Amino acid sequence: MPDFAGAAGALLETMRATRPLVQNITNFVAMDIQANALLAIGASPAMVHAPEETPEFVAFSGALVINIGTLSSQWLAAMHVAASSAHAMGKRWALDPVGAGATAYRDGAVAALLAHRPALIRGNASEIMAVSRIVRASDAGGRPNGVDSVNATSEAENAARALAAKLGCVVAATGAVDFVTDGARDMRLANGAPVMERVTALGCALTGVCGAFLAVEKDVFAATAAALAVYGVAGEMAAADAAGPGSFRVAFVDRLASITAQDVAARLTIA
Amino acid sequence: MPDFAGAAGALLETMRATRPLVQNITNFVAMDIQANALLAIGASPAMVHAPEETPEFVAFSGALVINIGTLSSQWLAAMHVAASSAHAMGKRWALDPVGAGATAYRDGAVAALLAHRPALIRGNASEIMAVSRIVRASDAGGRPNGVDSVNATSEAENAARALAAKLGCVVAATGAVDFVTDGARDMRLANGAPVMERVTALGCALTGVCGAFLAVEKDVFAATAAALAVYGVAGEMAAADAAGPGSFRVAFVDRLASITAQDVAARLTIA
Amino acid sequence: MPDFAGAAGALLETMRATRPLVQNITNFVAMDIQANALLAIGASPAMVHAPEETPEFVAFSGALVINIGTLSSQWLAAMHVAASSAHAMGKRWALDPVGAGATAYRDGAVAALLAHRPALIRGNASEIMAVSRIVRASDAGGRPNGVDSVNATSEAENAARALAAKLGCVVAATGAVDFVTDGARDMRLANGAPVMERVTALGCALTGVCGAFLAVEKDVFAATAAALAVYGVAGEMAAADAAGPGSFRVAFVDRLASITAQDVAARLTIA
Repeated sequence: MPDFAGAAGALLETMRATRPLVQNITNFVAMDIQANALLAIGASPAMVHAPEETPEFVAFSGALVINIGTLSSQWLAAMHVAASSAHAMGKRWALDPVGAGATAYRDGAVAALLAHRPALIRGNASEIMAVSRIVRASDAGGRPNGVDSVNATSEAENAARALAAKLGCVVAATGAVDFVTDGARDMRLANGAPVMERVTALGCALTGVCGAFLAVEKDVFAATAAALAVYGVAGEMAAADAAGPGSFRVAFVDRLASITAQDVAARLTIA
Repeated sequence: MPDFAGAAGALLETMRATRPLVQNITNFVAMDIQANALLAIGASPAMVHAPEETPEFVAFSGALVINIGTLSSQWLAAMHVAASSAHAMGKRWALDPVGAGATAYRDGAVAALLAHRPALIRGNASEIMAVSRIVRASDAGGRPNGVDSVNATSEAENAARALAAKLGCVVAATGAVDFVTDGARDMRLANGAPVMERVTALGCALTGVCGAFLAVEKDVFAATAAALAVYGVAGEMAAADAAGPGSFRVAFVDRLASITAQDVAARLTIA
Repeated sequence: MPDFAGAAGALLETMRATRPLVQNITNFVAMDIQANALLAIGASPAMVHAPEETPEFVAFSGALVINIGTLSSQWLAAMHVAASSAHAMGKRWALDPVGAGATAYRDGAVAALLAHRPALIRGNASEIMAVSRIVRASDAGGRPNGVDSVNATSEAENAARALAAKLGCVVAATGAVDFVTDGARDMRLANGAPVMERVTALGCALTGVCGAFLAVEKDVFAATAAALAVYGVAGEMAAADAAGPGSFRVAFVDRLASITAQDVAARLTIA
């Protein structure tokens, strides 16, 4: 798929030239790496959550990213203000449903946030399947029940596809293979490295990077796929320089800053 | 003490095979390194503090770790919900009394949290002595007064032993030499490296790692001693690769991921 | 200006010998790097914000640093308690007006915090110009309007000088060239490295380091200029060892720990 790799690389260059302001309401663990990943790759991150200033801030941001990682009632209220502002202003926002499926509180938070119509939902396979159950249960007027023991890739892909079609958004289920779909189109990307699962909040930071691409490309599917491509290739390249999760994180941030469109073209693996 | 080193290494392998879920309510400074240390060593960390979901979350966690570092009334309330849930469910929890003795507010928080019966209290020598004073003052119906000017090791050891016996828990006072006791048994471990005092939140992350061992070993004293052993040996090995606190932190996370039972057996220093 | 470099190096040594306790109320992104920068350079950082304990804590701190990065009403209330305590006790405090000028909420927060008379305000050029507008608008009974499109250095310098004179404090506008002034004296320092703009919260951490110097030198202008000198030279030296923003951050923390008075004397560039 040479066209896609070329388009992803071009979008990386556009994003860097634009240096979009990405507003993040994210969890306390991800604050540092998410801001540093965005800065390194060439975007301008802002961590702003106060309801008093969020509508004003959303107005001049390129995109909004909401992550429910270290959730609390106060932060959830802030997320609603931000997401509803973004929706009202026609700005794209991405939802990272960290831990969806783990508790009733978290499921309720996801269900409520979905009302503000995210452009993108990005999670791991089990989180995406949980969001899918939450939406189906919400339709049925109840709470989701049952936890998938396997979350086999194909199951997650079907859930992602149906979820994207139902909500009219893009859904990305990422892991060893990243799957992205808008319900009609889909793509599997297979870069990255196993060590990425041993560094905390790299999924969160990826959603942040997706936000940077959403800010510069109207086609949400293309923007998300490009972000996944760049992030995965950078991870694969960084892993070659790393002795473990500590040095990987350092090499990865370096690589997000140095990765080029040529690197993406040379290394992208579509599965 | 070859038996202990062997047991500690075996417990490390058991912990990695089990990959226990450790719930952490920790301070904002420690969030990143505590999660990354737990992930690197092979556990599954979760930073969850909302009272709305904590009881549900505690139920499927292997252990709970509470750290009062960047305390506030809202977080303290969350800690009470979590610790009381853990106590009610018979789950072990570890208390990291950061800054105990510094202010009346902090001392009151420690006194109140102790009612939920932690399995382990881990702090530096002066924090452990402060907790000891808090417990004694609480018995006498007053506030602790006087600050130890010296915190000589032997003084801290006596305080730790008495505290452990009185509360029926394990107490670890860590530093250049780590002292761990359950009131009857005790042990001194002397690995680690001076640079560890120049990296923030490594004590907090250690309490997190203790949580991972508590999740897989019923003998709290043995679990804690094993965690201290592995952490100290990893620190000593990482220091050999580091040029300062920045590179130490990176090397340490790498080493937590790569340290083996053999490393522990070969290097453990019992003082 | 050999005298200044020598004085800055001497102050670094004094600070390390004193190991001042610096209380920080800072944003969630900066928590980690600000604490680690302070620890590395030789100070003793504490991140404490609870109104219940802040007045007690301020009393034995060497200095207080307040950063409005991830602002919320609760944290703003805590900042007021801390800053007013510091002011009442005659302790110096430094304000980092992150994002000043971005929203009305943020501008209002800055205006209100200024009532507690910071000894130092440190920000980038556009933040310092925003604070200047906030103060002028406050005098005129209104809200600032207009955003400077250019923030040319000379414009920022004039704003800083007028602000310092009006408030009776020191103002530092940092960037490729750092400008520091107390309204009468001023200095331009030109060390550092471009990569520093690609690592998040290094400005926040710098304000923290300024706090460490304020704790040991009564002349706020001299203290701030020395902190800027040491930080800039450390950054320049670290950049020589770095392949990107990830490895720079690691090398920078190492260098903050190892930088000597001789390094400052040999490399300081006054512009």
